[in-house]
Parts: sequence; structure tokens; C-alpha cells
Amino acid sequence: MRFVRFEVQGRVAFGELDGERVFTLAGDRFGRWQRTEASFPLAGVRLLAPCQPGKILAVGLNYRSHLQGRPAPSKPELFWKPSSAVIGPDEAIVLPSDAQDTHPEGELVVVIGQRASHVSPKDAAACILGYTCGNDVSDRAWQQGDRQWWRAKGCDTFAPLGPWIETEFDPDTAMIATRINGETVQEGRIDELIFGIPEIISFTSRYVTLEPGDVIYTGTPGHTRAMSPGDRISVEISGLGLLENSVMG
Amino acid sequence: MRFVRFEVQGRVAFGELDGERVFTLAGDRFGRWQRTEASFPLAGVRLLAPCQPGKILAVGLNYRSHLQGRPAPSKPELFWKPSSAVIGPDEAIVLPSDAQDTHPEGELVVVIGQRASHVSPKDAAACILGYTCGNDVSDRAWQQGDRQWWRAKGCDTFAPLGPWIETEFDPDTAMIATRINGETVQEGRIDELIFGIPEIISFTSRYVTLEPGDVIYTGTPGHTRAMSPGDRISVEISGLGLLENSVMG
Repeated sequence: MRFVRFEVQGRVAFGELDGERVFTLAGDRFGRWQRTEASFPLAGVRLLAPCQPGKILAVGLNYRSHLQGRPAPSKPELFWKPSSAVIGPDEAIVLPSDAQDTHPEGELVVVIGQRASHVSPKDAAACILGYTCGNDVSDRAWQQGDRQWWRAKGCDTFAPLGPWIETEFDPDTAMIATRINGETVQEGRIDELIFGIPEIISFTSRYVTLEPGDVIYTGTPGHTRAMSPGDRISVEISGLGLLENSVMG
Repeated sequence: MRFVRFEVQGRVAFGELDGERVFTLAGDRFGRWQRTEASFPLAGVRLLAPCQPGKILAVGLNYRSHLQGRPAPSKPELFWKPSSAVIGPDEAIVLPSDAQDTHPEGELVVVIGQRASHVSPKDAAACILGYTCGNDVSDRAWQQGDRQWWRAKGCDTFAPLGPWIETEFDPDTAMIATRINGETVQEGRIDELIFGIPEIISFTSRYVTLEPGDVIYTGTPGHTRAMSPGDRISVEISGLGLLENSVMG
């Protein structure tokens, strides 16, 4: 099933997308919930980022095709993005005036469904609510020039998420593609991940308690390319969905 | 005045500490609020972390005495700590089983009082609610061995904060000291900060919108030393307060 967060008639609600119709949910999306009678055509609502993470982790260097000669890491290499960077489908990625070399990074994103602390890889699957598409927007100049990636990866609008959370997605058979104005700039198979999702959740949960709604960006494949104001960026994952955002200067 | 967050009789509330008495507040601490009739002796309540930040920024290398031969940075060098790392006064810092060389870093922490985006250094003061003491717990082995400081600075319990938010504190005349089991291991004057607080707020707000309750750890002076299970760590800032936490293995 597909969980959405949406705005309609000036109100924000959680819903289930069924075909082209959004059914409003009552209850706790991470616990007990049910469909209500209130429903809307998908075309009549505005989809928002499908969750509001308390924290965002992201994995670096997690596809061999992205290493570019660097050695493969021996453990997951993570970093933080702030929750304030989240935007939803069709919201604008805003480049700070002194950003110099900002790239999209299309990524599969895991949404945590239940608290995870010190879970084994085997038990990690039970902590997953589902998956969504993400764009780990990254300024290469700041990644090189700053000691840590706080702004390179953390500026406002640098964490597009959406369009929904798919609960029945199988990462092992999916393809991911990132496009700038329709031209494919990144492409890969999700099963090329160096560290798989259960391993990432298990490793991070040794240090950090993951909570419902937290998300993990799982890494980006291949090479990336700078984007410019006016560009339209799309991240598409087969069997999951398509996340599109425009770029503003 | 001193804002506190506290637990009494199983309930959590915001309060104003007046002498040795805590008065419960009604309303919005970041907007309009008032004292209520309900008050408790300070000794009869449990103080919690004085705010629940949506995000935590921290400044590295911000005292000349901490540089140890490294060049002084030409701009504030920041990093993220996750909100999940926050603990309050007297809560235990828990060292992960594979932590190897974990140090306390006593720091002055700024608490944001109103939304700040693209503020000038001159206007930054108006965005500050007040100040508290912080301990930027840091594992040196992970700082060296990981690509980013996600767990070195971000494990659960690695962000002690408290005991209260002091609104009338003057950073320019204060001393900071960090002690392990009563022995002073770090000492400095807050006015030795390389980048002052208005400058830090102004710089970060060019990239990240700061929200009420967000906090910024402003850097640590001098040398640090590893701590061990059973140790008692204190961070004291003159004119502000004393934050104490024990260490558990």
C-alpha cells in the first residue's frame, strides 16, 4: 500500500493512495489506523513529503559505481541531514546564493516504522514501514572545502522526499534513475548497494535509536552532475514512484 | 530569568526558576507565557533538558586554545548532532560497547528564541532566547576513523544540556570549566571564541532556517581527556549554571 501526506482545502492529512484516489486515515500511521469515508481524487490534492522525520541519516559511498577509484568502505559511512531540509514533491530546491556546484543524488530512502535500538540485521526488516524516493542534494564545493558536510548536505530544501511511502516494495529487483530535464544522469540497480538495508539499520541502531518516521537515505549510484536554476530534477525508482522537483536560484 | 523543563508527580512541565522555587508556566515559552499559581521547591522536582531542539548545530575549532597547532578556521566550521542525543542534568552518558576514546567537551550553548533566516550579525541577538551549558560528547577514534562525525558526536546520550536556559547571561564576561570527578580538565573564557555568537547565527542562517528551541553548541576550549564508566562530568559556566552527568559503560 501507499501512504501519503497531503493537503486539501487548506488542511493537512495522512492518507492511503488507492489507484487514483486518496482515502484519509484516522489513527496512528505507525500503529493502528483505519481508512475513513473521506476521500479525494489524487489530482485534487497536493502531496507533501510523506513523513516528517525526527532525524535523517544518509549513507555515503554505498554503490561501487559511485566510488570513482576510492576504496569501498569496510563499514557503512553515514552522515546527518537536518529535518529542516525536507521538502515534498514539486517543491523547489533553492540554491543558496553562494552555492557553486550543487548536484542531485537520487536515492532509495527507508522509512522507519518502529523503534529500533541494537537490532540484528535479521530483525531489521520488522522496523521498516516502507520506502520512498529521495534526493540527497549535495554541494560539491562545500563537501571539499568545509570540515564537515553540514551545509553541503543540509541547506534548507536539500532533502526532497516522496511522493509516497510504498510498503510492499522489493529493493532487490528495482532500478533507480535520476534525470535532469529528462536526460538520465544517474542509473543503477538497487541490489548493487554495498551495504544492504538490514545491515545499515542494524549498524546505525547500535549507536542511535531509530524512531518511527525517521528516514535513511541509502546512497547514490554512478556519477552526478551539477544542476542550475530552472532545471527539473526527477528521481524514479521502478515499482515505487517518481519524485520531481524544480531548482530555484 | 531562568527557564526550566521539569518533571514532578509524573508530569512534565515548563517553569521559571525563581530562587529555589519553580513556578509552572502557561502559554508558549517562545511567545506569550505567564506564571501560574502552581509552584514547587527546586529540590522536589527533576530538571530535564531545558528544551527539545528540532535541530542541533555545533561549532568545531572555535577556541584558539583548542586548535593544537591547526590553523584557525576562516569561517565557522559546523556539524550536526541529532536531537535524539539530548539528555538532561544528572542523566547518564552511556558509552557504546565499542567506543574507545570518548571525551567530554564543555560548551556554551545558545538557545534560539525566534525563527532566523538570513539574519545579519546585528539582528542575531533578537533571535536568542538564552543560554545553557552543554557537553559535546565526542569519540576521538570515530572522529579519526569515520568519514563524517555522525556517531563520534551523535550517539544516544552524547548531547547533555542544562540545567536551565538563562536569559540574562553575558557571554563576554563568563568563564567555562569542565571537570572529571572534580578535577578541572578544561578551562577558558567565553570571550576567547574565534567566531562570536551573532556571527555564528548570522552565518548558519544563510543556509539553514533556525527555529525556536534549536540550539547551537559554540565550541570547546583547551585540551580534553577521555572519560570512563563511573566518572562524574561537570560543565560549569560562571553566571549561568552547572551541568552534571555520570558516565555508564
